[in-house]
Amino acid sequence: AVLPAGGCGERMGVPTPKQFCLILERPLISYTLQALERVCWIKDIVVAVTGENMEVMKSIIQKYQHKRISLVEAGVTRHRSIFNGLKALAEDQLNSKLSKPEVVIIHDAVRPFVEEDVLLKVVTAAKEHGCSDYDLEFGTECLQLTVKYCCTKAKLVEGSPDLWKVTYKRDLYATESIIKERISQEICVVMDTKEDNKHVGHLLEEVLKSELNHVKVTSEALCHAGRHLQQIILDQCYNFVCVNVMTSDFQETQKLLSMLEESNRSILYPVVVVSVHFLDFKLVPPSQKMENLMQIREFAKEVKERNILLYGLLIPYPQDDQKLQESLRQGAIIIASLIKERNSGLIGQLLIA
Amino acid sequence: AVLPAGGCGERMGVPTPKQFCLILERPLISYTLQALERVCWIKDIVVAVTGENMEVMKSIIQKYQHKRISLVEAGVTRHRSIFNGLKALAEDQLNSKLSKPEVVIIHDAVRPFVEEDVLLKVVTAAKEHGCSDYDLEFGTECLQLTVKYCCTKAKLVEGSPDLWKVTYKRDLYATESIIKERISQEICVVMDTKEDNKHVGHLLEEVLKSELNHVKVTSEALCHAGRHLQQIILDQCYNFVCVNVMTSDFQETQKLLSMLEESNRSILYPVVVVSVHFLDFKLVPPSQKMENLMQIREFAKEVKERNILLYGLLIPYPQDDQKLQESLRQGAIIIASLIKERNSGLIGQLLIA
Repeated sequence: AVLPAGGCGERMGVPTPKQFCLILERPLISYTLQALERVCWIKDIVVAVTGENMEVMKSIIQKYQHKRISLVEAGVTRHRSIFNGLKALAEDQLNSKLSKPEVVIIHDAVRPFVEEDVLLKVVTAAKEHGCSDYDLEFGTECLQLTVKYCCTKAKLVEGSPDLWKVTYKRDLYATESIIKERISQEICVVMDTKEDNKHVGHLLEEVLKSELNHVKVTSEALCHAGRHLQQIILDQCYNFVCVNVMTSDFQETQKLLSMLEESNRSILYPVVVVSVHFLDFKLVPPSQKMENLMQIREFAKEVKERNILLYGLLIPYPQDDQKLQESLRQGAIIIASLIKERNSGLIGQLLIA
Repeated sequence: AVLPAGGCGERMGVPTPKQFCLILERPLISYTLQALERVCWIKDIVVAVTGENMEVMKSIIQKYQHKRISLVEAGVTRHRSIFNGLKALAEDQLNSKLSKPEVVIIHDAVRPFVEEDVLLKVVTAAKEHGCSDYDLEFGTECLQLTVKYCCTKAKLVEGSPDLWKVTYKRDLYATESIIKERISQEICVVMDTKEDNKHVGHLLEEVLKSELNHVKVTSEALCHAGRHLQQIILDQCYNFVCVNVMTSDFQETQKLLSMLEESNRSILYPVVVVSVHFLDFKLVPPSQKMENLMQIREFAKEVKERNILLYGLLIPYPQDDQKLQESLRQGAIIIASLIKERNSGLIGQLLIA
């Protein structure tokens, strides 16, 4: 794949070229690279960037651990950038780590939502039809360049609505909201055991399920060596509700945090962890418990460095069943808010349901 | 002006027609009506809605106190809806409260960001040129309809980028972010007095100014009969930081809340009020103060009914100047987060800087 990324983003009305604008603190182009990387049959991704952005691009590749990426210098026009990318792929240099491809995908750096099925359609069509006159009529300059300079076949195929291009500032807003929505589709409730059905964690899980209709809510035990939990972390869950009921206030949360830190999952997206604490306000005045729980501020500062957003949530635990349901419901609303917004300004706060 | 609003929003991928989709809990069409209403020379606004949405539309007009609106039934096509709207304007019925207009603006119900200057250009052009053949070439069906059925002149003028149409779900996300940004441009710090320069409210104001570069931060005194403050409320400020230093914990906040409730300002947008409380943690343990401040939960529930989002913020007040600056800076970050997100799930929480 070739990604021309030498543009300066004039229409955005922002000083940063749009491919480098931050979405959840990560540059837009990194999302596009991630989308292409997920496709295992794309062998090489050649990104064309201007000389002045070469170092920025290198640090992005390093920070977000992108693989199979090569960089070439962008030209003064989009044409030239694509040409440079294609040349890098086509040249059979001895020192080049790139191999001559069968099919080349030319993709925009600012279309982060490209899906594998669209890419597959494109590649299949390219293999089947080669590059006919018909295609040329609907194609843009990219297609003509490919035909002219690269000893390989190529075709331009119309995309799906998801392929839209980030052009204006409003598109950045939309991108951020879409990404936030995508990573908020699953919540994992983590507790000390999975067996006990009457466990308060399971009660919370049930309320979360009924309050958040469109979200998949699962639960996991911490104590079973965390094997399964590790899988969930790898399965792209970015939201954890950790139920603390052991003697030490943060035992469960601390275990979960170390697992998350080890998994490296939070490199790509900020992971939300809500540390939940139950308290019978009639037995213990909340102020006393709260003073212990203030420690969460320090934990939160620490894990923020690893892109983990930690919040505390104190849920009153009244004996009355109906009141308990109501406080669990309040807790669920707060959890939903925290996950939806991923607000880094509020980390370390102790909220009360 | 005529607003065809009979569409069903197929492309949105949501069940609600897009003109009725909620942005900050208010239907999109209400934002568009607000944009047209602000223009004093638009005499009548005729909205064409389907029979089944007639009651919904009536309740929107009532709830958000829209003026100069008439409703007509939408046709099966956009053509027909515009025709019905124009007919209502053109007919010189005895009972009609509408007057025959000199110029008709046909606007989309789902283009909420129309500005007066664009409308003025449109109307001026219409008056100057009438409806020439040249216009027709670039016009759409609306123009032809106007020419054919309405005894008045009309012209279609190309709009600015702000005029974009809400079409896809991502456009709803963008609209919400743009509106949130627009109403977060100004913060008013409210305190008991304006004269005392060493007042902690002024210190907070200074830190807010230096931390939030793009935001206009002003301050107002509560005690001067609130005349000036009333003007600020009317001048479309939707963000208030209320500094409580009097003996009673919430005296200032309660005064401000009553003023806001009287002003009716929060009808159109959710107003954020951050109730700020200072505390020397060395003298008083936070837990003790916090128990008093828990009352904020009740206040918050109450004013939420009036679309006011109330949050509490406890700022440590150390004697050390440098530490004080740091805790004010933390407070400013939290205030900025609350204003930016306008998260109704977190109202009534007591946050700690």
